Amino acid sequence: MTLSVYETLRVTLNRNLDVVDHLLDQAAASAQARSFDIGVLLNARLAPDMLPLIRQVQLISDMGKGMAGRLSGTTLPVFEDVETTLPELKQRIARTREFVNSIDPASFAGAEDREITIPTRAEALRFKGLDYLLSFALPNFYFHVSAVYMILRHNGVELGKRDFLGLR
Amino acid sequence: MTLSVYETLRVTLNRNLDVVDHLLDQAAASAQARSFDIGVLLNARLAPDMLPLIRQVQLISDMGKGMAGRLSGTTLPVFEDVETTLPELKQRIARTREFVNSIDPASFAGAEDREITIPTRAEALRFKGLDYLLSFALPNFYFHVSAVYMILRHNGVELGKRDFLGLR
Repeated sequence: MTLSVYETLRVTLNRNLDVVDHLLDQAAASAQARSFDIGVLLNARLAPDMLPLIRQVQLISDMGKGMAGRLSGTTLPVFEDVETTLPELKQRIARTREFVNSIDPASFAGAEDREITIPTRAEALRFKGLDYLLSFALPNFYFHVSAVYMILRHNGVELGKRDFLGLR
Repeated sequence: MTLSVYETLRVTLNRNLDVVDHLLDQAAASAQARSFDIGVLLNARLAPDMLPLIRQVQLISDMGKGMAGRLSGTTLPVFEDVETTLPELKQRIARTREFVNSIDPASFAGAEDREITIPTRAEALRFKGLDYLLSFALPNFYFHVSAVYMILRHNGVELGKRDFLGLR
């Protein structure tokens, strides 16, 4: 098997969406065992000016569907950021996985050279597909997956690196 | 340009080692501006049973040289975990970058199919190169880079996502 954009996204997105789903289950079990509302964890953040766990999960979804859609030239579905509960967040993850896995692998042909533009508050960022994947999309995606893990660990949920790596 | 193991490692490792170097500089500036010893940040952690910032940087180095060495079949240099100061950590990053960039690109030929074994406390993990890269090495590496950012953010260092993405 050769490394390709399709294979990178297929493995990375499916693995990490599974991991986030598992982390949310662990969060729920921890809240129940420690007798507090799961909402405390869903709204927890690592700093007052960082985003809470709910937003981290929504951004994982956005980054995931964003990179799969943009690199394959597929129109991105709009997922409104309306989740407030654990089942809703798990549903958001499931919808993201469904979209990602619905894309025809053949549409990733030539992904490395696709022109990709990301609007930001400051300026539009312009990339070739390969640079977008390696320098923007993957770091961004892993940033938010890591944030979910670290918010939970900081709040006493019993997790280890194996949970993050999906080695269970 | 086509996606390849070599290109993935070249971009990912150089970018993120630069990012960590920059985050350490921002940590030093923040400690100085707030009149406390940088050692407080270097020894900070997000949970009592998580590793402090110094160890996160050492692990970034280990993961970085590990994936470049293993996927190219190059003998890994041993870097002792002796750093206690900011200049020593920056030197560790520089040595890691130097090793990674010293590897002949041609030696990554066939990396996807290389047999890779990672000893762990529980059991030895066995991978083909492609799966090692996507399912173990990259998530692990990004985990520790994210940990450095989040430890610093949690301790009030003024950073934003752009610092993490190297967009400066």
